[in-house]
Amino acid sequence: MSDLYDKISELAKRRGFFWPSYEIYGGISGFYDLGPYGTLLKNRIIEKWREYFIRRHQEYVVEIESPIVAPSVVFEASGHVEHFTDPIVSCLKCGRRFRADHLVEEALGTSVEGYSLEDLSKVIREHNIRCPFDNGELGEVKSFNLLFKTQIGPYEGDIGYLRPELAQGMFTAFKRVAETMRNKLPIGIAQIGRVGRNEISPRQAMIRLREFTIMEMEYFIDPEDKDNACPFFEEKANVKFRIQSYNMKLRGEEPQWFTLEEAVENKLIIDKCLGYWMVIGYEYMGSLGVPGSSMFFQEKGPHERAHYSKQTFDQVVRVSRWGWIEVAGHSYRGDYDLSRHMLYSKADLTVFKPYKESITIKTKKVRVDKSILGKIYKEKVYDIVNIIQNMPVESISEQLEKQGYLKIGDHHIPLEAVKIEEVEEKITGKKIIPHVVEPSFGVDRVLYVTLEYAYREKEGRVILSFPRDIAPIQAAVFPLLENDWDLIREARALYKILVDEGFQVLYDDTGSIGRRYARADEIGVPAAFTVDYRTLEDKTVTLRDRDTWKQVRVKIDNIPQALRLFLKGARLEDLGSPLS
Amino acid sequence: MSDLYDKISELAKRRGFFWPSYEIYGGISGFYDLGPYGTLLKNRIIEKWREYFIRRHQEYVVEIESPIVAPSVVFEASGHVEHFTDPIVSCLKCGRRFRADHLVEEALGTSVEGYSLEDLSKVIREHNIRCPFDNGELGEVKSFNLLFKTQIGPYEGDIGYLRPELAQGMFTAFKRVAETMRNKLPIGIAQIGRVGRNEISPRQAMIRLREFTIMEMEYFIDPEDKDNACPFFEEKANVKFRIQSYNMKLRGEEPQWFTLEEAVENKLIIDKCLGYWMVIGYEYMGSLGVPGSSMFFQEKGPHERAHYSKQTFDQVVRVSRWGWIEVAGHSYRGDYDLSRHMLYSKADLTVFKPYKESITIKTKKVRVDKSILGKIYKEKVYDIVNIIQNMPVESISEQLEKQGYLKIGDHHIPLEAVKIEEVEEKITGKKIIPHVVEPSFGVDRVLYVTLEYAYREKEGRVILSFPRDIAPIQAAVFPLLENDWDLIREARALYKILVDEGFQVLYDDTGSIGRRYARADEIGVPAAFTVDYRTLEDKTVTLRDRDTWKQVRVKIDNIPQALRLFLKGARLEDLGSPLS
Repeated sequence: MSDLYDKISELAKRRGFFWPSYEIYGGISGFYDLGPYGTLLKNRIIEKWREYFIRRHQEYVVEIESPIVAPSVVFEASGHVEHFTDPIVSCLKCGRRFRADHLVEEALGTSVEGYSLEDLSKVIREHNIRCPFDNGELGEVKSFNLLFKTQIGPYEGDIGYLRPELAQGMFTAFKRVAETMRNKLPIGIAQIGRVGRNEISPRQAMIRLREFTIMEMEYFIDPEDKDNACPFFEEKANVKFRIQSYNMKLRGEEPQWFTLEEAVENKLIIDKCLGYWMVIGYEYMGSLGVPGSSMFFQEKGPHERAHYSKQTFDQVVRVSRWGWIEVAGHSYRGDYDLSRHMLYSKADLTVFKPYKESITIKTKKVRVDKSILGKIYKEKVYDIVNIIQNMPVESISEQLEKQGYLKIGDHHIPLEAVKIEEVEEKITGKKIIPHVVEPSFGVDRVLYVTLEYAYREKEGRVILSFPRDIAPIQAAVFPLLENDWDLIREARALYKILVDEGFQVLYDDTGSIGRRYARADEIGVPAAFTVDYRTLEDKTVTLRDRDTWKQVRVKIDNIPQALRLFLKGARLEDLGSPLS
Repeated sequence: MSDLYDKISELAKRRGFFWPSYEIYGGISGFYDLGPYGTLLKNRIIEKWREYFIRRHQEYVVEIESPIVAPSVVFEASGHVEHFTDPIVSCLKCGRRFRADHLVEEALGTSVEGYSLEDLSKVIREHNIRCPFDNGELGEVKSFNLLFKTQIGPYEGDIGYLRPELAQGMFTAFKRVAETMRNKLPIGIAQIGRVGRNEISPRQAMIRLREFTIMEMEYFIDPEDKDNACPFFEEKANVKFRIQSYNMKLRGEEPQWFTLEEAVENKLIIDKCLGYWMVIGYEYMGSLGVPGSSMFFQEKGPHERAHYSKQTFDQVVRVSRWGWIEVAGHSYRGDYDLSRHMLYSKADLTVFKPYKESITIKTKKVRVDKSILGKIYKEKVYDIVNIIQNMPVESISEQLEKQGYLKIGDHHIPLEAVKIEEVEEKITGKKIIPHVVEPSFGVDRVLYVTLEYAYREKEGRVILSFPRDIAPIQAAVFPLLENDWDLIREARALYKILVDEGFQVLYDDTGSIGRRYARADEIGVPAAFTVDYRTLEDKTVTLRDRDTWKQVRVKIDNIPQALRLFLKGARLEDLGSPLS
């Protein structure tokens, strides 16, 4: 029996939403093409994300674009070369390779979360788990890095990787972006782009791909000033959404409804900004047609989190075949990434935070009289001065008080050569390493989910009831009959008007009008305009609503504006007169 | 002295258009980030391309998206594994590697177009060309493949490559896309996405990148029905643009103006569709601010063309530092790619072309009497029948007539076992392999060119005079003075209105109004709205034009509509009343 996934896959292939890439070569798992309607839908999903995450927050959030390929040092710094791995095991007989944790979990039916490679090897030996293809013996479990590896330029040693997430592009460019924004936190840097994850054996079609598109934001905040980090928090404080904390999960409790404010106050969510962007993500998925009751935020446990994360929630949506799947991850990355890049690059990635008023502090400074020391130490004097100036002032003053001289190795530095003075210093601010909150969406999963929530069957026909403003094709134009040139001429004229106005329009004059409505419904065209004989008399056409199949009569001159309003959610009845 | 390229690079870094990627790690040549304004500009450049190439032709042209990584067979079929190479030579002393042709051309000052690897090695030896760094001896010239290579999945043998062009994604998906479009030619398949070319030593910054974005279309036509392949040709037949054919170039002639019709009739352009899309490309670049006189189409010579091309024009634009640079390539790829993929995949990538009326033809068929042959040849009978049925009917009937038998190797097949019959066959159509016309734009170059053509200096200040509808930031909102809360409140309210209407807006209340105008001009904000004391009385603000610095007074309520019209090109004077 075919489930919803099968139905959507069939429709997606036939009508041009998506299909496996390189089919003519037998396909290759983990790669999918988006067809014409899939690409239009994806572009609208991306534009909506831009609207929710960037445009509405444009004073703080900007979009950048960084390359897919990066030199290895970037992913050494980020920790991916070390941590971005899956356990792999080979059959000693046929040579096939498997994800070791999946193999063990399937064989034993229990979770192996947090198991080391040695643990997995041991379990495989003890339970005599064997190759699922030829029952061959399995070897030792090893670590397989999921980064796609390549070489940059003509020298073999110059390793590069395809990014597995967008984040590192934002971290390595942080300083430049911050400068263009006058170094004032909070700063959100968003990016939309392709990533690669070289999965060992991806099997869930559009859900687990080796190459896909991510929409991601790194939101940089001042960790000492969290109250001002999220200027829009109050607007969403009372929005309710479901959370399942890791403890709730361990206790077997269902996700529960909380307002944003409650979730933050109860410390279920450790940071206001993290919570705020979760709400935006929640409302964003809602705008694509996923109801709040089909969605929740699942906190990841310590072993499930990525190496950079202090707290992570998966935003999960229910789908027919796989149950709850992650469409987004919301992570508190702290200062992990910027600190690592500072360590590896030696660049200063801090932000200077000016105090409201500069502070004057009294501080002790050591002054060394080089003319005295020069006479004693000659050319060694600079080394000695250097050592003294790197010593803590307290230890110098203590020695001088106690001994009357300063001991450096074998040398006794006389009291008169070292003076400790009290000076006033004006401090105008301090350097901080911003913390980072990251919402990250997988576009292809969002696209699949959108299709599944749009899918309806009505009187044996399929309708994709997308929210009108994300429908790939926005309107259809039909002449009532297929061979009447008067009707066709009017219909073509209307089609051209709508195309010139920038709409995405389907023109179809083949087959019965009923069949054409059905074809348009199947790809989710929200509005269909039909030119009939009355049109030739009074310049009106029928506007048919995809979801209700109701119709009204609209003047041709008003159609572009009526369509704009309809796509924004206007009621059909408000756009024309009822059919008489 | 800094040239325009230097000025733009400095501005681009400082204000956030673009900068070298991974700067904190010392950068890596051939990779650039787009900053906030660069990304906005790029997105508008892409939307404009969609408008010109896809949306206006939406009945024939669709957009798809295919992966960046492809299994090796795809690029074996496409010819890239064999042909997508540059000659490379190493210094035997320091080990540095160079592009051999560039090295020779720089050393000798002459072109080495069409030279083989052996030719280049010989020239290097004969002229004793040495390493430019340490004067070391150079080795033999070798071939370096520019494909970024990687491994797909956990098996070492599974080679994958990053695509160097988008085209193969359209060819491998052609069958599916054609089906969704009812297999009716012409069909344009467009794609916008990243590609990788592992250049040996890229040096021209944004102009020659190792990873960049392409906007490309494969336009599939019926080679036997070229008149109907380009239904929009007449609309552009009289558009004039400059062409320099390869022969003109050889003769040292300047490019000349032709209408599209002339160029096709004179056979300067070998195909109508190729010419049509060149015109669209010409008008597209015009819409980004490049005048026709700064642009022409340069035909490539036989040695300069890619291996798949029958004719190629570079669409070149003049820039300050490098002279004429290619922003797009327009190629006639014929049936090269589909044929190669048919050969490598064994898939049928033809399109069935129905005849208007089916034809009945009389045809001769060979009928072999297996029972007779079976008695003679036993188990060999199937091989023999197979051989007979693969022979041309004419040669069989000739032999039978002449000899009275058929000779297959040593065997004599008797007359009575082979009958030639005349049969009637109904033919409803035929299979054709479509030909392909390809316009292909490099987004990053287009972006750089757009910046260069927008760049102006006026009274010592920099203005980016983008065409208004592609400006990254569409409007600025300023309170006249920086510390007046009444003005700030009104300005913030106006800012919010414009953001809610979907505009990209700059709000700035720091520094003198003159400095703020200058900052906005420098990033090319076309419209600036300033809230002043009169605003508090009559709810009007000034609208200032970036290019003329003229101002008019507009009612706040009318601003969203006025801004929309202004961005579409309305005259300032038509949008408000003159300042009094």
